Amino acid sequence: MNIACVLGPQFEDSEFKKPFEAFKKAGHEVTVIGVTAGEKLQGAHGKESFTTQKSIDEARPEDFDALFIPGGNSPDKLRANDKMVKFVRRMFDMKKPILAICHGPQLLLAADRYKGYRITAWQTVQEDLQKAGADVTDEEVVVDQNIITSRKPDDIPAFIDAGLAILQQPIMKHSATVPEPGLNQ
Amino acid sequence: MNIACVLGPQFEDSEFKKPFEAFKKAGHEVTVIGVTAGEKLQGAHGKESFTTQKSIDEARPEDFDALFIPGGNSPDKLRANDKMVKFVRRMFDMKKPILAICHGPQLLLAADRYKGYRITAWQTVQEDLQKAGADVTDEEVVVDQNIITSRKPDDIPAFIDAGLAILQQPIMKHSATVPEPGLNQ
Repeated sequence: MNIACVLGPQFEDSEFKKPFEAFKKAGHEVTVIGVTAGEKLQGAHGKESFTTQKSIDEARPEDFDALFIPGGNSPDKLRANDKMVKFVRRMFDMKKPILAICHGPQLLLAADRYKGYRITAWQTVQEDLQKAGADVTDEEVVVDQNIITSRKPDDIPAFIDAGLAILQQPIMKHSATVPEPGLNQ
Repeated sequence: MNIACVLGPQFEDSEFKKPFEAFKKAGHEVTVIGVTAGEKLQGAHGKESFTTQKSIDEARPEDFDALFIPGGNSPDKLRANDKMVKFVRRMFDMKKPILAICHGPQLLLAADRYKGYRITAWQTVQEDLQKAGADVTDEEVVVDQNIITSRKPDDIPAFIDAGLAILQQPIMKHSATVPEPGLNQ
């Protein structure tokens, strides 16, 4: 699987690093996409840093099989960028697996793609989602169709397990072929 | 006026410092309240730091005439604390002036006190507020009754002007102690 990971400043160090390494170890490709390419991003706790490999301008949803959204302050920074929001919305609409932890679901909120799905998030984001009409639950990991969400660093092992399970489902590989709405208009 | 300023980690440096200094220069007292007292907080840009003067456990809404909520990552950190949210809700319900900039209105969202007021906020928070049913507008400063909101560092001068104007209204000084007219009728 080719996984797109969208990353911004002050990402939660372990919420990026641990799933990133686990997904790679399981044989998946992970491409880290930022607002710009070649930008060195620091984790919120100063423990991890990573240089973005691709800019959102270059990133095409059809090139990826799944989307991984780490938490921290990163998702709120990313959702200020329209192209980033559109990328998330398109991945969602193509029914590709989306793995979002902590503040990650802020990007689902910004993309207006959360209704009709059971989801969880960081405690303060749970409230935003609830007020926005989402079906929120407070569990370490919630899997609803192609959407996998978790709350915080403690949930990382369950998040990784659920993520690896959905990434192994071959059916998801084919969802990329759904034509883009209005492409031929 | 005794102004309560609620502050958490990674506050937006200028959104705290500039209004803080302007309010003090105009003769107001500003008490910086954190989750704990004596905690040295760093600004998100590393330009400012401030040590909290009072903990939220010690802070009594009746001791303050107004509330100032700087932006940055601080409000999202603070709204994870129930006492902080209750303090904001109580200040709101006592109709004291509330001055919130950038991510500051996240605390109004958490306190469930925003409906029926025209407000603004940082662009990503505007969306959360809209989805939660708030009456959001995109202006440098919005004054609606006792609620004053702004969007970002560029708005600071307008935010300070509107803040100082409402802090000079003597009626606000009495709102905490004087019983409402007609209470004994």
